[in-house]
Amino acid sequence: MRMYDLIMKKRNGGNLSQEEIEYMIAEYTAGRIPDYQMSAMMMAIYFQGMSAQETTALTMAMAHSGDMMDLSDIEGVKVDKHSTGGVGDKTSIALTPMVAACGVKIAKMSGRGLGHTGGTIDKLESFEGFTTGITAGHFVRQVNEIGVSIMGQTADIAPADKKLYALRDVTATVDNMSLIASSIMSKKLASGADAIVLDVKTGSGAFMKSEKDSFALAKEMVTLGNMAGRKTIAVVSDMDQPLGRAVGNALEVEEAIATLRGEGPEDFTKLCMTLGTYMLIAGGVSSDEKDAEKRLQRVIEDGSALKKLAEFVQAQGGDAKAVYDTTLLPKASVIEEIVSVQSGYIEKIDCDEIGICSLILGGGRETKESEIDLSVGLILNKKVGDHVASGEPLAVIYANDRAKLTAAKERFLKAYHFADKPVQRAQLIKGIVRE
Amino acid sequence: MRMYDLIMKKRNGGNLSQEEIEYMIAEYTAGRIPDYQMSAMMMAIYFQGMSAQETTALTMAMAHSGDMMDLSDIEGVKVDKHSTGGVGDKTSIALTPMVAACGVKIAKMSGRGLGHTGGTIDKLESFEGFTTGITAGHFVRQVNEIGVSIMGQTADIAPADKKLYALRDVTATVDNMSLIASSIMSKKLASGADAIVLDVKTGSGAFMKSEKDSFALAKEMVTLGNMAGRKTIAVVSDMDQPLGRAVGNALEVEEAIATLRGEGPEDFTKLCMTLGTYMLIAGGVSSDEKDAEKRLQRVIEDGSALKKLAEFVQAQGGDAKAVYDTTLLPKASVIEEIVSVQSGYIEKIDCDEIGICSLILGGGRETKESEIDLSVGLILNKKVGDHVASGEPLAVIYANDRAKLTAAKERFLKAYHFADKPVQRAQLIKGIVRE
Repeated sequence: MRMYDLIMKKRNGGNLSQEEIEYMIAEYTAGRIPDYQMSAMMMAIYFQGMSAQETTALTMAMAHSGDMMDLSDIEGVKVDKHSTGGVGDKTSIALTPMVAACGVKIAKMSGRGLGHTGGTIDKLESFEGFTTGITAGHFVRQVNEIGVSIMGQTADIAPADKKLYALRDVTATVDNMSLIASSIMSKKLASGADAIVLDVKTGSGAFMKSEKDSFALAKEMVTLGNMAGRKTIAVVSDMDQPLGRAVGNALEVEEAIATLRGEGPEDFTKLCMTLGTYMLIAGGVSSDEKDAEKRLQRVIEDGSALKKLAEFVQAQGGDAKAVYDTTLLPKASVIEEIVSVQSGYIEKIDCDEIGICSLILGGGRETKESEIDLSVGLILNKKVGDHVASGEPLAVIYANDRAKLTAAKERFLKAYHFADKPVQRAQLIKGIVRE
Repeated sequence: MRMYDLIMKKRNGGNLSQEEIEYMIAEYTAGRIPDYQMSAMMMAIYFQGMSAQETTALTMAMAHSGDMMDLSDIEGVKVDKHSTGGVGDKTSIALTPMVAACGVKIAKMSGRGLGHTGGTIDKLESFEGFTTGITAGHFVRQVNEIGVSIMGQTADIAPADKKLYALRDVTATVDNMSLIASSIMSKKLASGADAIVLDVKTGSGAFMKSEKDSFALAKEMVTLGNMAGRKTIAVVSDMDQPLGRAVGNALEVEEAIATLRGEGPEDFTKLCMTLGTYMLIAGGVSSDEKDAEKRLQRVIEDGSALKKLAEFVQAQGGDAKAVYDTTLLPKASVIEEIVSVQSGYIEKIDCDEIGICSLILGGGRETKESEIDLSVGLILNKKVGDHVASGEPLAVIYANDRAKLTAAKERFLKAYHFADKPVQRAQLIKGIVRE
């Protein structure tokens, strides 16, 4: 078999066999197929697409390119959760303790963020001492003991995907549905959970801008998961404006904690309830939505979800006191209101721009080596559909640097768009995709 | 400027500006753009194509990526000739002395062959001592003195094309019209001739299989040449079966010599006359086809074309006696007839297969490092349209190794296809493309 022939085949619109895809991934991971051939292949796939069979073969080949986590020592159904990402997405921090408090085992692998804001791991590091750099043994033990653990993704999980994604990222071959789906699902399959609940974002701040594409991606991933024997459900949710009100690592943790106290923003609470519902169903704890919602409601009301977060933080070395006293989280030195210079109804918020404001403040990572300032960010007072009078505060900005604050503020004001007449609020949950 | 953005632009169907193409080629040649980005770009170009402006910019950028030969020390109009290549194509060996004998200055750069048979340089090395490894000074002096020289292409001629072609060759991105045209023309423009006559082959043994594609390529190259201020004419000629009767290095040289004596095969003689006609017109020696043909006829009849070949061979260190006594050329040790096992009219000869027979015998190069056996090859007795009786010889095979001979013979017989009824002979010259 020669990589040249496989490129030619795909270029001419042919379908690669399972054997050909396995060869390609194994040889590429081993460094025997050069990057320049693989990038030509990725561009050919961008134009010619991949069949369902090819996408499955690619996903399985990448999943098996490194370690397959063995979670059989954890009793019961292990559920994983994945979001395609967006601005203000602190879902895992509130959701995983909620679901664990209902008795579902959460064994989740997570990555660091690159771009606008931090990833889940960065956010969790707002708890002093918290680490995701735990061993597989610790991970398994912790899930058995307290029902939840989040571990940093090791280099040995789907190394083929890691190498291939880095190549796609610099050759303009990222945005192909099959390649995105196989990249996400290969990691999830290798991570070993029995069931997977996916949060597929849609809108201007999401990777998939249109609902049509978002549903297509959701469907593709659900099919891949189920074909691999993992119960997989996807929720398609709005990312046309930031999720919740907090954007920035410690600020988002604070919002997640508020949500576990029942005091979270409406949209974020709703998303946690929806995803949680399907995690309870996937985990076999509830048989229908109604029952799941009731259970989730209860663990918030009786404080057991908040307690679960404290247990989880403590089990991974973090300062659990901050769960009950959020003044212990990292705090910014300069806090200012951003005041509207216009009146009207908020028609649109440029989602990515709000993320970039947080990045400017120091809350995100421009390169892998960047240090993150966990304390900075924004709390949005006003969201799409709200009415604002000139002089009213749109948001509160948290910074540690005057110049950065000024730059972020200027950019922030440009991200808000106003209308004279009332504006319809977008639906948060666009739909559910199941087998 | 970032290569990533250029790939994205082309991928999305945009046109690259002259500035962008110049940046891309300069940075790639300097090693500052990696192969994996360039191969993604080439695949994007394969799918999205290039406009006439883009193709011109690419051609000029590659032509200027290294030395531009300065032939101003040669008096008169310097004419170059290029063939897109095929099986049995020994045209340059007969054609250049014919044209030079008519007074047109031939300053030609040539490459070695990789594949079926040798290239022009390999074939010329059948003259013992002959070398194309001459200096630019020698080249210019020789053209001034005897009117013809063929020099090996130096590494400094269009290095961008050299690097890019090697990449395209292993990433299945060779067969795009604009990329082929710019690759050929960048080298021709850098080689410094004032006028260029192109022999664009068409048919099963050619790079371009259909007449439509061949004419499109011819048109694209003629436009590129003329835009760069070089008088450029293309002849589209048949390559559905081997050209002439000889396939193999020394055997082809012998056939070229026979043609200069007026004893060549009809098709090959016709092609030399046609290409020569336009070289005389491009070189300003003849103003019309009739005059050119008469002059070419004369230099064959009076022996001056043959004499010119001898001068040319001698000027580049070769044994010119072989021009008059072809027994001095390399000879194979085993010579056998290949006898037809069928009767009928020859309907089709798999052109590439005949080339591969020569390769099997040792007459071609599988890798850059392969040594060529100059003496081996085939002389075809029968070509398309000829009638053959079972037991009649189809060809004579020249070999130095019994096992190779057997393998080549077996393959050869499969390359001939027969019909019961008379078969129409294909037209050799398909057309002329001028400005």
